[in-house]
Amino acid sequence: MPVSKEKRLEKQIRFLESLDRLKQVWRRNYVMDRTRRENSAEHSWHIAVMAMFLKEYAPPGTDLFRVLQMLLIHDVIEIEAGDTFCYDKTANLDKDEREKEAADHIFGILPEDQAIEFRALWDEFEDRKTPESRFANSMDRFQVLFQNFNTKGGTWADHDIPKSRVLERESVVRTGAPGLWAAVEDILARSVDAGFLRDDT
Amino acid sequence: MPVSKEKRLEKQIRFLESLDRLKQVWRRNYVMDRTRRENSAEHSWHIAVMAMFLKEYAPPGTDLFRVLQMLLIHDVIEIEAGDTFCYDKTANLDKDEREKEAADHIFGILPEDQAIEFRALWDEFEDRKTPESRFANSMDRFQVLFQNFNTKGGTWADHDIPKSRVLERESVVRTGAPGLWAAVEDILARSVDAGFLRDDT
Repeated sequence: MPVSKEKRLEKQIRFLESLDRLKQVWRRNYVMDRTRRENSAEHSWHIAVMAMFLKEYAPPGTDLFRVLQMLLIHDVIEIEAGDTFCYDKTANLDKDEREKEAADHIFGILPEDQAIEFRALWDEFEDRKTPESRFANSMDRFQVLFQNFNTKGGTWADHDIPKSRVLERESVVRTGAPGLWAAVEDILARSVDAGFLRDDT
Repeated sequence: MPVSKEKRLEKQIRFLESLDRLKQVWRRNYVMDRTRRENSAEHSWHIAVMAMFLKEYAPPGTDLFRVLQMLLIHDVIEIEAGDTFCYDKTANLDKDEREKEAADHIFGILPEDQAIEFRALWDEFEDRKTPESRFANSMDRFQVLFQNFNTKGGTWADHDIPKSRVLERESVVRTGAPGLWAAVEDILARSVDAGFLRDDT
């Protein structure tokens, strides 16, 4: 094949190989048998599958293909920036800056057209302004609910996060996946009843 | 919400919770730093991302949205059936039967319309007759190439799998992602040169 085509594929493969490192980025929450923490690669898979099976709860007209692509790449910047625990106020002060710099590097490995396209898709996820990015973010939030519920409170219990902060964190579901909001409230109520979550509301 | 809607969501959540177990199904191949084996959840994520960035090597008209959905669910049956090493002849004798039974159970957790839709999508992946399923299978095959190349031969070296058997296994790439076939040959040649793969061809 011509040299230019080869170079293009070389960049793509280099990018895809570097993604392997996301399998070694450990989140705070556990897998459900609580034997270990969850990594960001398997987490990304889980929420993409969730989007497939819960798409009926997104606002009509939401483009699921776009949602899937967004979810599959939303965490790749953690290869450089690491996972930032959502309730860690100090770490969140410079999170945006660290992650944007990482995005420049990582998407920069790709051929220019793809670097531009997928960096924009990552920005869209982060900005939470489109129906697709709101639904995608809702999946990200909704998964933690049942990971924590199924691991005796998981990160809420570990870090004494009260219900008011969880509600604030989950609020994107109201607009991103309105059909799931009742389920969010239900899981939180059951978590409080089970003693997994402190009710400060 | 009405009772019927609640029951539907309950089934969907039960299905999505059960998928967590795929994070504990260990494949034979390694993650690239070779510290541990790869699990089927993070593997599914990796090959779905590969499909996004390598779509230009699929035959024109291949529906990438369908490919992504197929890749995201192609391994879920392993929750019950386990991962079957592709070069293990004995384990492969009853693989189809075991996996079909697992598919009946697992997709059976879902509301009926989704059970039918996604069982059909899983069957399509397995049958390798459509352009989408051939491209999806090609991603599954292509990933192992660079996982093994980057881990000093990985499963080829561990189980003394010679080049002829790898070529046979990779052959779906010729039709599924014709634009990648030269790269398959190149990676195999470099694997032989590096002493990671025995050349019996």
